[in-house]
Amino acid sequence: MPRTRSPYVVCTLAGALLTATAPAPARAQTIAERYQATADRLVAAALADSAAWNRLAELTDRFGHRLSGSEALERAIDWIIAEMQRDGLANVRGEPVMVPRWVRGEESAELVRPRPARLAMLGLGGSVGTPRGGIEAEVLVVGNREELDRRAAEARGKIVLFDVPFTTYGATVQYRTNAATWAAQAGAVAALIRSVASYSMRSPHTGAMRYDTTGPRIPAAALSVEDAAMLHRMANRGERIVVRLVMNAETLPDAPSRNVMGELVGRERPDEVVVMGGHIDSWDVGTGAMDDAGGVVVAWEAVRLLRRLGLQPRRTIRVVGWTNEENGLRGGTAYRDAHAVELDRHVLAIESDGGAFRPRGFSFSGSDSALAVVRQIGRLLAAIGADSVGRGGGGADIGPISQRGVPAMSPMVDGQRYFWFHHSPADTADKLDPRDMGQLVAAMAVMAYVVADLPEPLPRVRR
Amino acid sequence: MPRTRSPYVVCTLAGALLTATAPAPARAQTIAERYQATADRLVAAALADSAAWNRLAELTDRFGHRLSGSEALERAIDWIIAEMQRDGLANVRGEPVMVPRWVRGEESAELVRPRPARLAMLGLGGSVGTPRGGIEAEVLVVGNREELDRRAAEARGKIVLFDVPFTTYGATVQYRTNAATWAAQAGAVAALIRSVASYSMRSPHTGAMRYDTTGPRIPAAALSVEDAAMLHRMANRGERIVVRLVMNAETLPDAPSRNVMGELVGRERPDEVVVMGGHIDSWDVGTGAMDDAGGVVVAWEAVRLLRRLGLQPRRTIRVVGWTNEENGLRGGTAYRDAHAVELDRHVLAIESDGGAFRPRGFSFSGSDSALAVVRQIGRLLAAIGADSVGRGGGGADIGPISQRGVPAMSPMVDGQRYFWFHHSPADTADKLDPRDMGQLVAAMAVMAYVVADLPEPLPRVRR
Repeated sequence: MPRTRSPYVVCTLAGALLTATAPAPARAQTIAERYQATADRLVAAALADSAAWNRLAELTDRFGHRLSGSEALERAIDWIIAEMQRDGLANVRGEPVMVPRWVRGEESAELVRPRPARLAMLGLGGSVGTPRGGIEAEVLVVGNREELDRRAAEARGKIVLFDVPFTTYGATVQYRTNAATWAAQAGAVAALIRSVASYSMRSPHTGAMRYDTTGPRIPAAALSVEDAAMLHRMANRGERIVVRLVMNAETLPDAPSRNVMGELVGRERPDEVVVMGGHIDSWDVGTGAMDDAGGVVVAWEAVRLLRRLGLQPRRTIRVVGWTNEENGLRGGTAYRDAHAVELDRHVLAIESDGGAFRPRGFSFSGSDSALAVVRQIGRLLAAIGADSVGRGGGGADIGPISQRGVPAMSPMVDGQRYFWFHHSPADTADKLDPRDMGQLVAAMAVMAYVVADLPEPLPRVRR
Repeated sequence: MPRTRSPYVVCTLAGALLTATAPAPARAQTIAERYQATADRLVAAALADSAAWNRLAELTDRFGHRLSGSEALERAIDWIIAEMQRDGLANVRGEPVMVPRWVRGEESAELVRPRPARLAMLGLGGSVGTPRGGIEAEVLVVGNREELDRRAAEARGKIVLFDVPFTTYGATVQYRTNAATWAAQAGAVAALIRSVASYSMRSPHTGAMRYDTTGPRIPAAALSVEDAAMLHRMANRGERIVVRLVMNAETLPDAPSRNVMGELVGRERPDEVVVMGGHIDSWDVGTGAMDDAGGVVVAWEAVRLLRRLGLQPRRTIRVVGWTNEENGLRGGTAYRDAHAVELDRHVLAIESDGGAFRPRGFSFSGSDSALAVVRQIGRLLAAIGADSVGRGGGGADIGPISQRGVPAMSPMVDGQRYFWFHHSPADTADKLDPRDMGQLVAAMAVMAYVVADLPEPLPRVRR
């Protein structure tokens, strides 16, 4: 049951006919009646220039990638604070978070047999390094975990390569997360995976892995899709494969970082909050433009646009760049803890972490009656084709507050190429399009503004 | 005027009506009547398995890239000779060619200012190296040659980066070829280009460059599209850019190589030849699968297929893997010279060097009457959509014999992604599709077989 009921009614055909044939009776305005003109202004303003893309390019060119614990991440946060202040946002600040500090160091994978060749590789985040001088061992190639189970006796003392084609991220990422554990259980000395990627031009893709607490910790790395497939073909031909893996990765003591944020303070209920953003940290390859500088920038630009157009909603809109999404989620959990007392007054959380591509609408996790309201708001974006609102939204950084009852939302975008670039050296600003980003800024601005401006907060699920 | 006239008539509507309404009068068979069933057999056989792709994968997995002068190239040629003999081809041999030997050595480009970062780069083939320790200099970014001309005074002592977006290969490759010359004329110490690529996932693309004889020889390298664009944005923001370029490239004395070939000897006129193939050398990145192991393999597989189906044409079909296409064209010129006395009896030369993608037909350079004949042959491939025959075919390796009057042809293929992979680490076997390669094998087999089997040779342009 919803905790509150929205006074807004769905704009029906009957309602439309009424306005066409007779003076409207006294009734609540529909969302369309009240906000369509504002939405159209926001769309026009967001598409008038390439401000969002330019800001993304400047942020990523200036600081490069922003791995948790790196100086680049903290300098990027300093810059965002200064720029948000220049934009006139209120309550601009960095809220302290201690984050893990994993450093890659020099690394390489060399094919020794059947012929010498350098393999395109990236160590996985969180992996231990190899002993000094590396690990040189025969490679056992398996197509999935079941094959390793069947051939476990062959794995002892070898490097196990899981050459698993991409299906869905959820299914395939299991190998990135667990390859080292599974290989170590079979007595292997290192684990390799085929990069988790839906297309490849020889770019390896990194990402987080973890060890279980029981087995030995062996190094883990991703090969490019092409290199993994080649080793698999060699194995299928009966060739003996030897690889030399060198990784100087290590985990240093936790380091200070910050969730960075700024606000457009509400005119009537400043203590009620729509929070939106993305994560400001990235992996240490490419420049983390798609994942997820773009998410931070579109939310930030949405608020800048509202302010520039003089649109101050009833409630506060808070832009957040969460830290350490990639390898710890410490930013999302720290936000939950630092804001515990005000989470009941968090009306909505929106996270853009699927790439700042062309928006098609939003996905939403909340009550049925709240879904009906955000669907009406979505229709304001029909002109840019961003009017589809379905179930299932959320994001890693807003997960912890969503679990405390905050309705959660994420943009639905044309993300067909997301896993082409994800966690790879190819994640750079050019992969996002200025006009598509402008549309996403408009969609975020309209959704956040209207939710923040409605007379009543979005109805929550009763807890 | 054509030297000879084909006895084959174009199959007209009138002809078709005749066959439908009355017994055919005594006349020459059309190409369709004589060869359609054979063409269909070849198509079915070529699509029955993935033999061509498997051979491509084995060749490229086993030897990797095959730069002129490398041991890998010569070992690949040895293997091809052995395999062609196993296939039962006749007159299998390697014809000696001395080739240039450029070696890349260790190389890197580091962004020093405005922030430290490793740039994705590849030295250009033929470039000199940097002095030991590299060259560290400020970067002047220009968008084209005209901008360098205008700003020549700023170039002295700097590294010039030509950040030129891809338009056509012909236009854009001018920068790869000449950047070092143009930059040196303005007093620059090194030249960089944006990789010549129609799409990028941070892969740099190499390729041949050359020096003019008048100016100093400065090192030249390609940055990835993404890195070049980033440096250009930094320059547009007024930032001072410094790069440290290290290249240990050098040119060693010429080395022995070979044009590798084998034949299906003609049953009636073995001294008349249809020659077809691709180049077996490649750049020293990726595995040169698309450029151009695939071209060699589809021609070779076409002949193997003809032999397997017992199809021995009137004339000889010779498969050639030319050497040193990439940085010298010594294979193509050596073939011309070694076969000078028989070039008058070369009926047709076909080169596949546009990627072994799905075929749409052929392009042809020869007499109008020969074009009419090969268009009829092309129609035999309508079932696989490879029946379009237009003007303009040829290839680098068959250029020297085409200039001596040999009609020249190349497959037209769905090569939209050709310049995604060309001369880059992403040029690997997976970029070609087994079924598409099977279709191309069929198209090459049908075209070569019918041209080799016609009662009269293709009519040449009179010289």
